[in-house]
Amino acid sequence: MQHRGNLFVVSAPSGAGKTSLCKAVIDILPNLRHSVSHTTRSPRTGEVDGQDYHFVSNAQFDAMVADGAFVEWALVHGNRYGTAVASLEQVRDAGCDLLLEIDCQGAAQLKERCPDAIFIFILPPSLQELESRLKGRQTDTPEVIAQRLLNARDEMREMFWYDYLVINDEFDLASQQLQAILLASGCRTEVLKAQVQVLFEELDL
Amino acid sequence: MQHRGNLFVVSAPSGAGKTSLCKAVIDILPNLRHSVSHTTRSPRTGEVDGQDYHFVSNAQFDAMVADGAFVEWALVHGNRYGTAVASLEQVRDAGCDLLLEIDCQGAAQLKERCPDAIFIFILPPSLQELESRLKGRQTDTPEVIAQRLLNARDEMREMFWYDYLVINDEFDLASQQLQAILLASGCRTEVLKAQVQVLFEELDL
Repeated sequence: MQHRGNLFVVSAPSGAGKTSLCKAVIDILPNLRHSVSHTTRSPRTGEVDGQDYHFVSNAQFDAMVADGAFVEWALVHGNRYGTAVASLEQVRDAGCDLLLEIDCQGAAQLKERCPDAIFIFILPPSLQELESRLKGRQTDTPEVIAQRLLNARDEMREMFWYDYLVINDEFDLASQQLQAILLASGCRTEVLKAQVQVLFEELDL
Repeated sequence: MQHRGNLFVVSAPSGAGKTSLCKAVIDILPNLRHSVSHTTRSPRTGEVDGQDYHFVSNAQFDAMVADGAFVEWALVHGNRYGTAVASLEQVRDAGCDLLLEIDCQGAAQLKERCPDAIFIFILPPSLQELESRLKGRQTDTPEVIAQRLLNARDEMREMFWYDYLVINDEFDLASQQLQAILLASGCRTEVLKAQVQVLFEELDL
Protein backbone atom coordinates (compact mmCIF):
# COMPACT_ATOMS: atom_id res chain seq x y z
CA MET A 1 0.00 0.00 0.00
CA GLN A 2 3.10 2.18 -0.19
CA HIS A 3 2.03 5.08 -2.39
CA ARG A 4 4.25 7.42 -4.35
CA GLY A 5 4.85 10.79 -2.70
CA ASN A 6 3.68 14.04 -4.24
CA LEU A 7 6.10 16.64 -5.56
CA PHE A 8 5.20 20.24 -4.68
CA VAL A 9 7.02 22.98 -6.51
CA VAL A 10 6.90 26.45 -4.97
CA SER A 11 7.96 29.68 -6.68
CA ALA A 12 7.63 33.28 -5.61
CA PRO A 13 9.19 36.67 -6.25
CA SER A 14 11.84 37.64 -3.71
CA GLY A 15 10.15 39.17 -0.66
CA ALA A 16 6.83 37.32 -1.04
CA GLY A 17 7.62 35.17 2.01
CA LYS A 18 8.18 31.80 0.30
CA THR A 19 10.93 30.53 2.61
CA SER A 20 9.04 31.32 5.84
CA LEU A 21 5.85 29.76 4.50
CA CYS A 22 7.63 26.61 3.34
CA LYS A 23 9.37 26.30 6.70
CA ALA A 24 6.03 26.62 8.51
CA VAL A 25 4.44 23.75 6.56
CA ILE A 26 7.54 21.52 6.70
CA ASP A 27 7.40 21.84 10.50
CA ILE A 28 3.75 20.75 10.55
CA LEU A 29 3.48 17.96 7.98
CA PRO A 30 5.38 14.84 9.07
CA ASN A 31 5.49 13.18 5.65
CA LEU A 32 6.91 16.23 3.88
CA ARG A 33 10.61 16.60 3.02
CA HIS A 34 12.69 19.38 1.57
CA SER A 35 14.51 18.31 -1.58
CA VAL A 36 18.26 17.65 -1.18
CA SER A 37 20.44 19.39 -3.78
CA HIS A 38 23.77 18.30 -5.23
CA THR A 39 26.69 20.67 -4.69
CA THR A 40 30.38 20.91 -5.47
CA ARG A 41 31.05 22.93 -2.34
CA SER A 42 32.77 21.25 0.63
CA PRO A 43 30.65 20.11 3.57
CA ARG A 44 30.60 22.54 6.50
CA THR A 45 30.98 21.24 10.05
CA GLY A 46 27.92 19.23 10.98
CA GLU A 47 26.57 18.90 7.43
CA VAL A 48 25.65 15.34 6.48
CA ASP A 49 26.06 13.98 2.95
CA GLY A 50 22.67 12.94 1.53
CA GLN A 51 20.85 14.92 4.19
CA ASP A 52 21.95 18.55 3.87
CA TYR A 53 23.37 18.12 0.39
CA HIS A 54 24.66 15.43 -1.90
CA PHE A 55 28.33 16.47 -1.94
CA VAL A 56 30.00 15.68 -5.27
CA SER A 57 33.27 16.54 -7.04
CA ASN A 58 33.45 18.93 -9.98
CA ALA A 59 33.98 15.94 -12.29
CA GLN A 60 30.91 14.16 -10.93
CA PHE A 61 28.86 17.34 -11.30
CA ASP A 62 30.13 17.77 -14.91
CA ALA A 63 29.11 14.18 -15.70
CA MET A 64 25.62 14.75 -14.25
CA VAL A 65 25.18 17.93 -16.28
CA ALA A 66 26.27 16.05 -19.41
CA ASP A 67 23.79 13.25 -18.60
CA GLY A 68 20.95 15.76 -18.24
CA ALA A 69 20.54 14.60 -14.63
CA PHE A 70 19.61 18.06 -13.33
CA VAL A 71 16.30 19.81 -13.61
CA GLU A 72 18.23 23.00 -13.01
CA TRP A 73 21.62 24.02 -11.68
CA ALA A 74 23.35 27.28 -10.86
CA LEU A 75 26.75 28.68 -9.98
CA VAL A 76 26.76 30.56 -6.68
CA HIS A 77 29.96 32.11 -5.26
CA GLY A 78 32.09 29.71 -7.31
CA ASN A 79 30.24 26.53 -6.25
CA ARG A 80 27.64 24.71 -8.27
CA TYR A 81 24.24 23.63 -6.89
CA GLY A 82 21.78 21.44 -8.75
CA THR A 83 18.44 19.66 -8.36
CA ALA A 84 18.65 16.10 -9.74
CA VAL A 85 15.49 14.44 -11.01
CA ALA A 86 16.72 11.09 -9.64
CA SER A 87 16.96 12.35 -6.07
CA LEU A 88 13.44 13.77 -6.29
CA GLU A 89 12.10 10.46 -7.62
CA GLN A 90 13.93 8.46 -4.97
CA VAL A 91 12.20 10.30 -2.11
CA ARG A 92 8.82 10.06 -3.84
CA ASP A 93 9.24 6.32 -4.47
CA ALA A 94 9.89 5.91 -0.73
CA GLY A 95 6.40 7.38 -0.16
CA CYS A 96 7.43 10.82 1.10
CA ASP A 97 6.10 14.10 -0.25
CA LEU A 98 8.66 16.62 -1.45
CA LEU A 99 8.70 20.40 -1.31
CA LEU A 100 10.94 22.10 -3.83
CA GLU A 101 11.56 25.86 -3.77
CA ILE A 102 12.67 26.87 -7.23
CA ASP A 103 12.45 29.88 -9.57
CA CYS A 104 9.95 30.11 -12.43
CA GLN A 105 12.44 29.06 -15.06
CA GLY A 106 13.44 25.96 -13.11
CA ALA A 107 9.79 25.22 -12.40
CA ALA A 108 8.92 25.39 -16.09
CA GLN A 109 11.73 22.93 -16.86
CA LEU A 110 10.54 20.65 -14.07
CA LYS A 111 7.02 20.65 -15.47
CA GLU A 112 8.41 18.97 -18.59
CA ARG A 113 10.23 16.31 -16.58
CA CYS A 114 7.67 15.70 -13.80
CA PRO A 115 4.24 16.50 -15.25
CA ASP A 116 2.48 15.12 -12.15
CA ALA A 117 4.12 17.68 -9.84
CA ILE A 118 1.87 20.30 -8.23
CA PHE A 119 2.89 23.90 -8.89
CA ILE A 120 2.23 26.62 -6.33
CA PHE A 121 3.00 30.32 -6.77
CA ILE A 122 3.23 32.59 -3.73
CA LEU A 123 2.56 36.26 -4.35
CA PRO A 124 2.50 39.45 -2.28
CA PRO A 125 -0.83 41.28 -1.88
CA SER A 126 0.53 44.18 -3.99
CA LEU A 127 3.72 45.50 -5.57
CA GLN A 128 3.74 48.34 -3.04
CA GLU A 129 3.71 45.82 -0.19
CA LEU A 130 6.50 43.80 -1.85
CA GLU A 131 8.62 46.94 -2.13
CA SER A 132 7.97 47.87 1.48
CA ARG A 133 8.92 44.33 2.64
CA LEU A 134 12.15 44.38 0.64
CA LYS A 135 13.05 47.79 2.09
CA GLY A 136 12.10 46.63 5.58
CA ARG A 137 14.69 43.83 5.48
CA GLN A 138 17.42 46.51 5.43
CA THR A 139 19.81 44.01 3.83
CA ASP A 140 19.80 45.27 0.24
CA THR A 141 20.94 48.48 -1.42
CA PRO A 142 18.32 50.58 -3.27
CA GLU A 143 19.81 49.29 -6.56
CA VAL A 144 19.39 45.64 -5.50
CA ILE A 145 15.83 46.35 -4.36
CA ALA A 146 15.04 48.02 -7.67
CA GLN A 147 16.41 44.97 -9.50
CA ARG A 148 14.43 42.55 -7.30
CA LEU A 149 11.26 44.51 -8.05
CA LEU A 150 11.94 44.31 -11.79
CA ASN A 151 12.53 40.56 -11.46
CA ALA A 152 9.34 40.22 -9.43
CA ARG A 153 7.32 41.76 -12.26
CA ASP A 154 8.80 39.24 -14.71
CA GLU A 155 8.20 36.30 -12.39
CA MET A 156 4.62 37.33 -11.71
CA ARG A 157 3.88 37.17 -15.42
CA GLU A 158 4.48 33.40 -15.13
CA MET A 159 2.06 32.70 -12.30
CA PHE A 160 -1.04 31.75 -14.27
CA TRP A 161 0.37 28.44 -15.47
CA TYR A 162 0.83 27.34 -11.82
CA ASP A 163 -1.90 25.11 -10.33
CA TYR A 164 -2.40 27.19 -7.19
CA LEU A 165 -1.88 30.78 -6.07
CA VAL A 166 -1.31 31.78 -2.46
CA ILE A 167 -1.60 35.49 -1.73
CA ASN A 168 0.65 36.11 1.27
CA ASP A 169 -1.15 39.01 2.90
CA GLU A 170 -1.64 37.59 6.41
CA PHE A 171 1.02 35.00 7.15
CA ASP A 172 -1.20 32.66 9.19
CA LEU A 173 -3.88 32.50 6.52
CA ALA A 174 -1.33 31.98 3.74
CA SER A 175 0.36 29.24 5.76
CA GLN A 176 -2.99 27.55 6.34
CA GLN A 177 -3.73 27.75 2.61
CA LEU A 178 -0.35 26.27 1.65
CA GLN A 179 -0.88 23.47 4.15
CA ALA A 180 -4.40 22.86 2.77
CA ILE A 181 -3.06 22.60 -0.79
CA LEU A 182 -0.54 19.99 0.35
CA LEU A 183 -3.09 17.97 2.37
CA ALA A 184 -5.81 18.15 -0.29
CA SER A 185 -3.39 17.02 -3.00
CA GLY A 186 -2.97 13.77 -1.10
CA CYS A 187 -6.74 13.20 -1.33
CA ARG A 188 -6.99 13.49 -5.11
CA THR A 189 -8.62 10.40 -6.59
CA GLU A 190 -5.67 9.76 -8.91
CA VAL A 191 -3.35 9.68 -5.87
CA LEU A 192 -5.54 7.41 -3.69
CA LYS A 193 -7.01 5.13 -6.37
CA ALA A 194 -4.49 2.28 -6.09
CA GLN A 195 -4.63 2.34 -2.29
CA VAL A 196 -8.45 2.25 -2.28
CA GLN A 197 -8.49 -0.60 -4.80
CA VAL A 198 -6.42 -2.66 -2.35
CA LEU A 199 -8.56 -1.65 0.68
CA PHE A 200 -11.72 -2.76 -1.16
CA GLU A 201 -10.23 -5.67 -3.08
CA GLU A 202 -13.46 -7.65 -2.71
CA LEU A 203 -15.36 -5.01 -4.72
CA ASP A 204 -12.96 -5.42 -7.66
CA LEU A 205 -13.12 -1.66 -8.34
CA MET B 1 -13.36 41.79 -6.83
CA GLN B 2 -16.38 39.72 -5.84
CA HIS B 3 -15.52 36.21 -6.95
CA ARG B 4 -17.92 33.38 -7.69
CA GLY B 5 -18.25 30.83 -4.89
CA ASN B 6 -17.23 27.21 -5.33
CA LEU B 7 -19.74 24.39 -5.36
CA PHE B 8 -18.67 21.30 -3.39
CA VAL B 9 -20.66 18.13 -3.92
CA VAL B 10 -20.27 15.42 -1.29
CA SER B 11 -21.46 11.82 -1.64
CA ALA B 12 -20.93 8.80 0.58
CA PRO B 13 -22.49 5.46 1.34
CA SER B 14 -24.79 5.47 4.36
CA GLY B 15 -22.72 5.07 7.52
CA ALA B 16 -19.51 6.61 6.14
CA GLY B 17 -19.97 9.70 8.31
CA LYS B 18 -20.82 12.27 5.63
CA THR B 19 -23.30 14.31 7.65
CA SER B 20 -21.02 14.65 10.71
CA LEU B 21 -18.03 15.58 8.53
CA CYS B 22 -20.00 18.18 6.57
CA LYS B 23 -21.34 19.67 9.79
CA ALA B 24 -17.80 19.92 11.18
CA VAL B 25 -16.51 21.91 8.18
CA ILE B 26 -19.62 24.12 7.90
CA ASP B 27 -19.02 25.12 11.53
CA ILE B 28 -15.40 26.08 10.77
CA LEU B 29 -15.50 27.79 7.37
CA PRO B 30 -17.30 31.16 7.53
CA ASN B 31 -17.85 31.52 3.78
CA LEU B 32 -19.42 28.07 3.36
CA ARG B 33 -23.19 27.54 3.14
CA HIS B 34 -25.37 24.48 3.02
CA SER B 35 -27.56 24.43 -0.07
CA VAL B 36 -31.23 25.29 0.53
CA SER B 37 -33.70 22.82 -1.02
CA HIS B 38 -37.19 23.42 -2.33
CA THR B 39 -39.97 21.47 -0.63
CA THR B 40 -43.74 21.10 -0.80
CA ARG B 41 -43.98 20.34 2.90
CA SER B 42 -45.34 23.02 5.26
CA PRO B 43 -42.88 25.04 7.34
CA ARG B 44 -42.43 23.81 10.90
CA THR B 45 -42.39 26.28 13.78
CA GLY B 46 -39.26 28.39 13.58
CA GLU B 47 -38.37 27.42 10.00
CA VAL B 48 -37.62 30.38 7.75
CA ASP B 49 -38.47 30.43 4.05
CA GLY B 50 -35.31 30.79 1.95
CA GLN B 51 -33.12 29.81 4.88
CA ASP B 52 -34.21 26.33 6.00
CA TYR B 53 -36.08 25.54 2.77
CA HIS B 54 -37.71 27.31 -0.12
CA PHE B 55 -41.32 26.44 0.66
CA VAL B 56 -43.41 26.07 -2.50
CA SER B 57 -46.85 24.74 -3.43
CA ASN B 58 -47.37 21.48 -5.29
CA ALA B 59 -48.25 23.47 -8.42
CA GLN B 60 -45.04 25.53 -8.16
CA PHE B 61 -43.01 22.36 -7.66
CA ASP B 62 -44.70 20.73 -10.69
CA ALA B 63 -43.85 23.74 -12.81
CA MET B 64 -40.20 23.63 -11.70
CA VAL B 65 -39.98 19.92 -12.52
CA ALA B 66 -41.48 20.61 -15.96
CA ASP B 67 -38.94 23.44 -16.50
CA GLY B 68 -36.04 21.13 -15.63
CA ALA B 69 -35.20 23.48 -12.76
CA PHE B 70 -34.08 20.69 -10.43
CA VAL B 71 -30.79 18.85 -10.49
CA GLU B 72 -32.61 16.15 -8.57
CA TRP B 73 -35.76 15.75 -6.54
CA ALA B 74 -37.32 13.02 -4.43
CA LEU B 75 -40.57 12.14 -2.69
CA VAL B 76 -40.11 11.55 1.05
CA HIS B 77 -43.11 10.69 3.28
CA GLY B 78 -45.52 12.27 0.80
CA ASN B 79 -43.59 15.57 0.44
CA ARG B 80 -41.29 16.48 -2.40
CA TYR B 81 -37.78 17.88 -1.92
CA GLY B 82 -35.60 19.19 -4.74
CA THR B 83 -32.27 20.89 -5.42
CA ALA B 84 -32.70 23.73 -7.91
CA VAL B 85 -29.76 24.76 -10.06
CA ALA B 86 -30.87 28.40 -9.83
CA SER B 87 -30.66 28.48 -6.03
CA LEU B 88 -27.15 26.99 -6.17
CA GLU B 89 -26.04 29.58 -8.72
CA GLN B 90 -27.59 32.44 -6.76
CA VAL B 91 -25.50 31.67 -3.65
CA ARG B 92 -22.36 31.22 -5.75
CA ASP B 93 -22.92 34.50 -7.59
CA ALA B 94 -23.12 36.19 -4.18
CA GLY B 95 -19.56 34.94 -3.54
CA CYS B 96 -20.37 32.18 -1.05
CA ASP B 97 -19.15 28.61 -1.30
CA LEU B 98 -21.79 25.90 -1.24
CA LEU B 99 -21.74 22.41 0.21
CA LEU B 100 -24.24 19.98 -1.26
CA GLU B 101 -24.77 16.49 0.16
CA ILE B 102 -26.25 14.36 -2.57
CA ASP B 103 -26.26 10.71 -3.72
CA CYS B 104 -24.11 9.46 -6.59
CA GLN B 105 -26.92 9.58 -9.12
CA GLY B 106 -27.74 13.20 -8.25
CA ALA B 107 -24.04 14.06 -8.29
CA ALA B 108 -23.62 12.58 -11.77
CA GLN B 109 -26.55 14.68 -13.01
CA LEU B 110 -25.09 17.76 -11.34
CA LYS B 111 -21.76 17.20 -13.06
CA GLU B 112 -23.55 17.71 -16.39
CA ARG B 113 -25.18 20.95 -15.23
CA CYS B 114 -22.32 22.43 -13.18
CA PRO B 115 -19.07 21.09 -14.65
CA ASP B 116 -16.97 23.42 -12.45
CA ALA B 117 -18.27 21.86 -9.21
CA ILE B 118 -15.80 19.93 -7.07
CA PHE B 119 -16.81 16.34 -6.31
CA ILE B 120 -15.79 14.68 -3.05
CA PHE B 121 -16.54 11.07 -2.09
CA ILE B 122 -16.34 10.01 1.55
CA LEU B 123 -15.71 6.34 2.18
CA PRO B 124 -15.31 4.08 5.20
CA PRO B 125 -11.91 2.43 5.82
CA SER B 126 -13.46 -0.99 5.03
CA LEU B 127 -16.79 -2.70 4.40
CA GLN B 128 -16.45 -4.49 7.76
CA GLU B 129 -16.13 -1.13 9.51
CA LEU B 130 -19.13 0.24 7.61
CA GLU B 131 -21.22 -2.75 8.70
CA SER B 132 -20.11 -2.38 12.30
CA ARG B 133 -20.99 1.37 12.25
CA LEU B 134 -24.45 0.69 10.80
CA LYS B 135 -25.08 -1.98 13.44
CA GLY B 136 -23.74 0.31 16.18
CA ARG B 137 -26.37 2.96 15.41
CA GLN B 138 -29.03 0.50 16.63
CA THR B 139 -31.65 2.34 14.55
CA ASP B 140 -32.04 -0.08 11.65
CA THR B 141 -33.33 -3.68 11.35
CA PRO B 142 -30.91 -6.33 10.07
CA GLU B 143 -32.80 -6.25 6.72
CA VAL B 144 -32.34 -2.48 6.39
CA ILE B 145 -28.65 -2.81 7.27
CA ALA B 146 -28.20 -5.54 4.67
CA GLN B 147 -29.85 -3.30 2.07
CA ARG B 148 -27.67 -0.31 3.04
CA LEU B 149 -24.57 -2.49 2.64
CA LEU B 150 -25.70 -3.60 -0.82
CA ASN B 151 -26.33 0.05 -1.75
CA ALA B 152 -22.92 1.01 -0.36
CA ARG B 153 -21.22 -1.46 -2.70
CA ASP B 154 -23.03 0.06 -5.68
CA GLU B 155 -22.24 3.62 -4.61
CA MET B 156 -18.58 2.82 -4.05
CA ARG B 157 -18.27 1.67 -7.66
CA GLU B 158 -18.93 5.32 -8.61
CA MET B 159 -16.20 6.91 -6.51
CA PHE B 160 -13.38 7.03 -9.04
CA TRP B 161 -15.00 9.76 -11.13
CA TYR B 162 -15.04 12.06 -8.09
CA ASP B 163 -12.19 14.60 -7.80
CA TYR B 164 -11.29 13.76 -4.20
CA LEU B 165 -11.60 10.78 -1.86
CA VAL B 166 -11.71 11.12 1.92
CA ILE B 167 -11.27 7.89 3.86
CA ASN B 168 -13.13 8.41 7.12
CA ASP B 169 -11.08 6.21 9.44
CA GLU B 170 -10.21 8.75 12.15
CA PHE B 171 -12.84 11.49 12.25
CA ASP B 172 -10.43 14.36 13.07
CA LEU B 173 -8.09 13.51 10.20
CA ALA B 174 -10.97 13.08 7.74
CA SER B 175 -12.45 16.39 8.88
CA GLN B 176 -9.07 18.10 8.43
CA GLN B 177 -8.79 16.60 4.93
CA LEU B 178 -12.28 17.72 3.93
CA GLN B 179 -11.52 21.20 5.22
CA ALA B 180 -8.21 21.22 3.31
CA ILE B 181 -9.96 20.26 0.06
CA LEU B 182 -12.38 23.15 0.51
CA LEU B 183 -9.66 25.69 1.38
CA ALA B 184 -7.27 24.53 -1.35
CA SER B 185 -10.00 24.69 -3.98
CA GLY B 186 -10.27 28.41 -3.30
CA CYS B 187 -6.56 28.79 -4.16
CA ARG B 188 -6.78 27.20 -7.60
CA THR B 189 -5.40 29.55 -10.25
CA GLU B 190 -8.62 29.41 -12.28
CA VAL B 191 -10.55 30.58 -9.20
CA LEU B 192 -8.18 33.43 -8.24
CA LYS B 193 -7.08 34.59 -11.68
CA ALA B 194 -9.62 37.40 -12.13
CA GLN B 195 -9.02 38.69 -8.58
CA VAL B 196 -5.24 38.69 -9.08
CA GLN B 197 -5.54 40.47 -12.41
CA VAL B 198 -7.36 43.29 -10.60
CA LEU B 199 -4.85 43.37 -7.71
CA PHE B 200 -1.95 43.70 -10.17
CA GLU B 201 -3.72 45.78 -12.79
CA GLU B 202 -0.51 47.71 -13.50
CA LEU B 203 1.19 44.51 -14.69
CA ASP B 204 -1.54 43.89 -17.29
CA LEU B 205 -1.39 40.14 -16.62
